[in-house]
Amino acid sequence: MVNPHRYCVIMCGGIGSRFWPYSRSLRPKQFIDFLGTGRSLLQMSYDRILDIVPRENIIIITNEQYAVLVREQLPELAADQVLLEPARRNTAPCIAWAACHIAARDPEASIIVTPSDHLITREKLFLDSVTEGFAFVEENDALLTLGIKPTRPETGYGYIQVGPVVAGDIHKVKTFTEKPRLELAEVFVESGEFFWNSGIFLWKASTIISALKECAPDVANTFERGAGLYGTPAEAEFIRENFPGCMSISIDFAVMEKARNVYVECVNFGWSDLGTWSTLYDNSPKNRDGNVTQNCSVLAYNSTGNMFAVNDGGKLVVVDGLKDYIIADAGDVLLICPLAEEQRIKQMVNDAKLAHGDKYL
Amino acid sequence: MVNPHRYCVIMCGGIGSRFWPYSRSLRPKQFIDFLGTGRSLLQMSYDRILDIVPRENIIIITNEQYAVLVREQLPELAADQVLLEPARRNTAPCIAWAACHIAARDPEASIIVTPSDHLITREKLFLDSVTEGFAFVEENDALLTLGIKPTRPETGYGYIQVGPVVAGDIHKVKTFTEKPRLELAEVFVESGEFFWNSGIFLWKASTIISALKECAPDVANTFERGAGLYGTPAEAEFIRENFPGCMSISIDFAVMEKARNVYVECVNFGWSDLGTWSTLYDNSPKNRDGNVTQNCSVLAYNSTGNMFAVNDGGKLVVVDGLKDYIIADAGDVLLICPLAEEQRIKQMVNDAKLAHGDKYL
Repeated sequence: MVNPHRYCVIMCGGIGSRFWPYSRSLRPKQFIDFLGTGRSLLQMSYDRILDIVPRENIIIITNEQYAVLVREQLPELAADQVLLEPARRNTAPCIAWAACHIAARDPEASIIVTPSDHLITREKLFLDSVTEGFAFVEENDALLTLGIKPTRPETGYGYIQVGPVVAGDIHKVKTFTEKPRLELAEVFVESGEFFWNSGIFLWKASTIISALKECAPDVANTFERGAGLYGTPAEAEFIRENFPGCMSISIDFAVMEKARNVYVECVNFGWSDLGTWSTLYDNSPKNRDGNVTQNCSVLAYNSTGNMFAVNDGGKLVVVDGLKDYIIADAGDVLLICPLAEEQRIKQMVNDAKLAHGDKYL
Repeated sequence: MVNPHRYCVIMCGGIGSRFWPYSRSLRPKQFIDFLGTGRSLLQMSYDRILDIVPRENIIIITNEQYAVLVREQLPELAADQVLLEPARRNTAPCIAWAACHIAARDPEASIIVTPSDHLITREKLFLDSVTEGFAFVEENDALLTLGIKPTRPETGYGYIQVGPVVAGDIHKVKTFTEKPRLELAEVFVESGEFFWNSGIFLWKASTIISALKECAPDVANTFERGAGLYGTPAEAEFIRENFPGCMSISIDFAVMEKARNVYVECVNFGWSDLGTWSTLYDNSPKNRDGNVTQNCSVLAYNSTGNMFAVNDGGKLVVVDGLKDYIIADAGDVLLICPLAEEQRIKQMVNDAKLAHGDKYL
């Protein structure tokens, strides 16, 4: 039987600018059927958790501009399961609100907080890990993060150094580290002590609310002012007035790197953050030329190692002499860029904004 | 005053497959505003001749599938000025029909026959040359072709070797030659004796009809069977029944290379056949990176010498690391191909047809 005090918060307010123009501000990547399975990344995140969290305990938190997309993709949710942020303020305010909202409904709630835009391939292992994590945070005053066993010296992720085991796969956290240089990443992976920071967290609602008070009092104060309004018709109005005034800060920086009671569960369930075209390429089936096609037909001549992604289905892409490129067509924007240069895309988005305003964002 | 016996036949039934997918079977290049001037190549051909040929003497001959496009682009033409071919049979049948059609209306007619998809930059010189040509064919039993003074050893064109001068810029033709190898083309250009074959012809209706009888009796016989029907309501029905049975053959091969009375007028009025992406690139204004953009906005990084062409206006193309490529976006087909490989495009069209039928042609 599913534990009725367990909740899931799926964060899906990001704009996915690293995947521009395939991911646009009007339809970011979490709302796209990124892997061609028939379900968007958001829907896949939702489907995955249903085995261990009651349907009515799943909360989607997103930017208000995506309200219609969430309703379309998850029509089975009740209105109070979708929290709409009136502004983008990174993860700490988002998590604080969700915790207050859930705590008002169920003071004994325990919560898994998860991004919506990653890929998890081994669902059974994921569910076992999350179940172990829930049990741990329900019995302990603990902030738990899931650390992924690294499979390569990735320089695009943050790492968590683990301390002593406290139970099963769960360790005290020794340090959080930022994205390392390659040499350092290689040492990290070899040591066996470092795990990728997945951005998936488990805690009791009461534990994270206490931690916010202690580590991020500015954020905590904002949401304390709403006490008594959460779960009532006045909640939305309170958020509309107070959320935009919150500082923009990540939960890692605001809480996890400061709190005393931080733990990591070392897991290995086939995870990719799908944060870059290269990781998407790596995680996608390839044809015999090593080309990956998303939602299009391709005729390729002298062209290998490319990533083709088209928003509107049915397009034919004919290409000659391209190696290791991204070709992303989004109707009114076409991007052609070497995979190795994908870190330029944020700059390109800025340049497009300078030249054309919001038209192509 | 404009000579009322002078006629112009503009041929515009081609499908422009070398410019696929920018030029599609549903809207070939002659119907596109190729140079961004606000007028299509067909409209430019029409505008250009109006100074010396009466409006009502301009005949458009095209495939029946383009009837609507011609009406849209030249709404001022009367119904009997648009001849619709029920099948593609190259230029000889097309020219034979047009000659019979015009001769029925005006036995004294002289005609300029011109493709619709070239570029002419020096209009005054063009008009002077055509006027000289009309006068020559009206006074002589002559088939006259316009030979363009070559500016480079182009291997994509046919050449005409000139014989002795007969009047002004007009010479007897010594030989027609096919597309030469580069070494030969260099010799041709240096010799001063060779001119590019423009595919623009002048003759009296009676002269070309006689030449067809002599050199291409099969073609001539087909159209002789329609005597008495041209210019009547029965003409269209006769053509629908008889035109498709005609052999497919070019006027060069059927007549010009065989007839005794063939002349060339050596001209120099800034001509390009716009037959390839490379010639279009050469004839288009470039930005400081040497990129040419047709109907789109471009953000280019490390990208020079490219040709960007988009059918639907308003698209933003963002490109990094492409040099000397064609990037042609036609809604449901995107082509990315090195300019130097553009001769592959015909093969690509074939491959697209094999894989997807007519959908993308």
